[in-house]
Amino acid sequence: MYRDPVQSLEPLPSRSAAPRALRVGMIGIGTVGAGTFRVLARNQADIAGRAGRPIELVMVAARNLERAARIVGGTVPVTDDPLRVATHPDVDVVVEVAGGTGPARDWVLAAIAHGKHVVTANKALLAVHGAEIFAAARQHGVAVAYEGAVAVSIPIVKALREGLTANRIEWVAGIINGTTNFILSKMEDEGLDFAAALAEAQALGYAEADPAFDIEGIDAAHKLTLLAANAFGTSVRLADVQVEGITSLQRTDVACAAQLGFRIKLLGVARRREEGVELRVQPALVPVSHLMAHVNGSMNGIMVKGDAAGVTMYYGAGAGSEQTASAVIADLVDVARLDGTHAAQRVPHLGFHAHAMSALPVLPRAATCSSHYLRVPVHAAGDVEAISAWLVRQQVPVRHVTLAAAAQPGSGPQVLVLTQPVQQGTMDLALHALQAHPSVAGKVTALRVEELA
Amino acid sequence: MYRDPVQSLEPLPSRSAAPRALRVGMIGIGTVGAGTFRVLARNQADIAGRAGRPIELVMVAARNLERAARIVGGTVPVTDDPLRVATHPDVDVVVEVAGGTGPARDWVLAAIAHGKHVVTANKALLAVHGAEIFAAARQHGVAVAYEGAVAVSIPIVKALREGLTANRIEWVAGIINGTTNFILSKMEDEGLDFAAALAEAQALGYAEADPAFDIEGIDAAHKLTLLAANAFGTSVRLADVQVEGITSLQRTDVACAAQLGFRIKLLGVARRREEGVELRVQPALVPVSHLMAHVNGSMNGIMVKGDAAGVTMYYGAGAGSEQTASAVIADLVDVARLDGTHAAQRVPHLGFHAHAMSALPVLPRAATCSSHYLRVPVHAAGDVEAISAWLVRQQVPVRHVTLAAAAQPGSGPQVLVLTQPVQQGTMDLALHALQAHPSVAGKVTALRVEELA
Repeated sequence: MYRDPVQSLEPLPSRSAAPRALRVGMIGIGTVGAGTFRVLARNQADIAGRAGRPIELVMVAARNLERAARIVGGTVPVTDDPLRVATHPDVDVVVEVAGGTGPARDWVLAAIAHGKHVVTANKALLAVHGAEIFAAARQHGVAVAYEGAVAVSIPIVKALREGLTANRIEWVAGIINGTTNFILSKMEDEGLDFAAALAEAQALGYAEADPAFDIEGIDAAHKLTLLAANAFGTSVRLADVQVEGITSLQRTDVACAAQLGFRIKLLGVARRREEGVELRVQPALVPVSHLMAHVNGSMNGIMVKGDAAGVTMYYGAGAGSEQTASAVIADLVDVARLDGTHAAQRVPHLGFHAHAMSALPVLPRAATCSSHYLRVPVHAAGDVEAISAWLVRQQVPVRHVTLAAAAQPGSGPQVLVLTQPVQQGTMDLALHALQAHPSVAGKVTALRVEELA
Repeated sequence: MYRDPVQSLEPLPSRSAAPRALRVGMIGIGTVGAGTFRVLARNQADIAGRAGRPIELVMVAARNLERAARIVGGTVPVTDDPLRVATHPDVDVVVEVAGGTGPARDWVLAAIAHGKHVVTANKALLAVHGAEIFAAARQHGVAVAYEGAVAVSIPIVKALREGLTANRIEWVAGIINGTTNFILSKMEDEGLDFAAALAEAQALGYAEADPAFDIEGIDAAHKLTLLAANAFGTSVRLADVQVEGITSLQRTDVACAAQLGFRIKLLGVARRREEGVELRVQPALVPVSHLMAHVNGSMNGIMVKGDAAGVTMYYGAGAGSEQTASAVIADLVDVARLDGTHAAQRVPHLGFHAHAMSALPVLPRAATCSSHYLRVPVHAAGDVEAISAWLVRQQVPVRHVTLAAAAQPGSGPQVLVLTQPVQQGTMDLALHALQAHPSVAGKVTALRVEELA
């Protein structure tokens, strides 16, 4: 029977040799790479004690050699050739933290072809090239680990792939982009409009100079595809995600949602239905009584509903140098804990073994279903009943209707509606017709409501 | 290089044989055992797809053979001899869900001695006999997995042992007993006193007829020792935990805490300090702005502070038949994912390999440190300043002092004090002296305050 070298030699300490280190080659030494170097150095004794053997950085590839040398301090050889790291015989595991999709794909595939395990925090790479990369890794019997690609500080990939394996997962819903959550929290807490909140996020370093990737929901969509694939045992299908960002969200709607007892969050939702899977990233109303409504600032929170475990939730920082390093190093420890000679892909890349993956269809927008919030500018406060009755005639089940308490200066009365769950196709038809209703005095706003029950 | 049998045979499906099932023997088929049977049967295809091979229940030991046979429906042999299951050659893994500490210890040790992996949800067994059981498992190269022993639906053992391995853990703090959290939520939400809330918990099945184990904090202490051992790499030391339950908690203090912006929760806290580790289970005030204050009803929530990841939190049901089954089966999938012939203890039982365990001292009560809440019945409202000034002279740093807004009918004015962090030794001396202060008109109440920042 195989025994861990450290453990099995215990009764004979005099014969014990130092266990072989896991040798790491790192491609990229920006924020995440530098954090990984720092944490590996700071906690090396604890990490080796947990892993059963030391984890050693043996080589770094970086574009800026001088900056890289400053970070690693002359202790680790630095090259400007990522392929040298990806293919070097002294490297057991390649950590890819350079980012991007084109060249990173080549480096990762080269590492796999040379029998090396790969650890990456590159969600875009996996969302776009995941199927190809995982297939190559299966063929070569190596692991591709990516805990750092989703909600970095939170071991959510591990929770889905290993912690909740008994469950049929019904849905995953999460605040998985810290930038937009920071902006939404500012809009709610300080009554700012989107532009002002974005400017503050940029000033504080929570948003990039070009924030499109975050605020248009692309980053969240990358993460959602990885979560959904692990939850349902389907392939990674970025193109099938309905994506809507927060750029057109009005401060008024944040206030009206609060009046109704909700907060607005940018949620990634993956939900299994009889006919297929819903995959969507959208701003949505969450009941203020719900734990998810209290995931504020730049924090991330992910809920998973399993048929046995019920609802579990995972919360933590979704970005940051050492926060991402925490995930990258956990992946390295996982690899180190496999025996050197028998190292293999213990946990399948997407939770399910390849033969058990299913080709669940992704539902088109019209077939998805949820409750809705509507804000309808009307000519007179008395129109509230007419709007409600009209919606019911359009097959939109109305749960609650009221007037906005505090309208924007200069705007007229606003009818607020909460619906029961309704198919998006029905809702879209009704919204189109409602816009032409004689009582309606301006653009109707519709947002989804997620009860997460 | 070793390859997973399922994966490596993919290119040659015609030659693939069905992978060997993992054969499970179960001891005990009460609530948790029946849930495990049910979930294994219901989700067997998904579970096999995740594990890479089927997980099959091949034998059950139960005291009540008739009841056991009714549950497993004649498909699985049932015996009334647990040792037969523990030692049977057809069993690869023994699931111990019978509970108790004496006989369960014998069964588990017998299984280990026969080279079988063990999965258990028995926190009492591990809190009391963990050191002996883990040592035996190391010697025989088998795994003892126990995700179901702590906050069942939440994969928190996995998060600590595998997800956060990069981190030096600074503290773990959690609501890890659902019964007491249900009672405290009732006291807060409905203004019930302890006895009434307990009676409601019993009526609804959230508390046992003899609730001492839960309400006196013993159950939480069992779980805290397992969390602390995994967080810090120390041995399991139940005897060193300071344990205080909620039986003497007054409804008045729940109301006064609310007035100050706090909720009272029964928290298990394990905190690393320079001089050693604090291990304590106590009712404590948590700021209402904090996510932990929103873990209500019978739910559990655990926060972990790591030096790299920062604060992460894990939330879910802490009890229940299928909720516990979720953890037990996840442990079985972990075992199944190891190759049959090379199966070993991939992850050390307490996160750290034995040579790297540390013997951190556990701090005595007097050396622990935290902020405090005091409620001081006084003769006159004007005594508030005198009490505050007196406390400062006793080296108790006062952060906030006020009068209780709504006293109990018939009681006099009550001074409420929030302190800065202060050593418990200093606090205990001050409290003793304060009780004799001429302004004090009744018993002084003191509770810890946990900022969890």
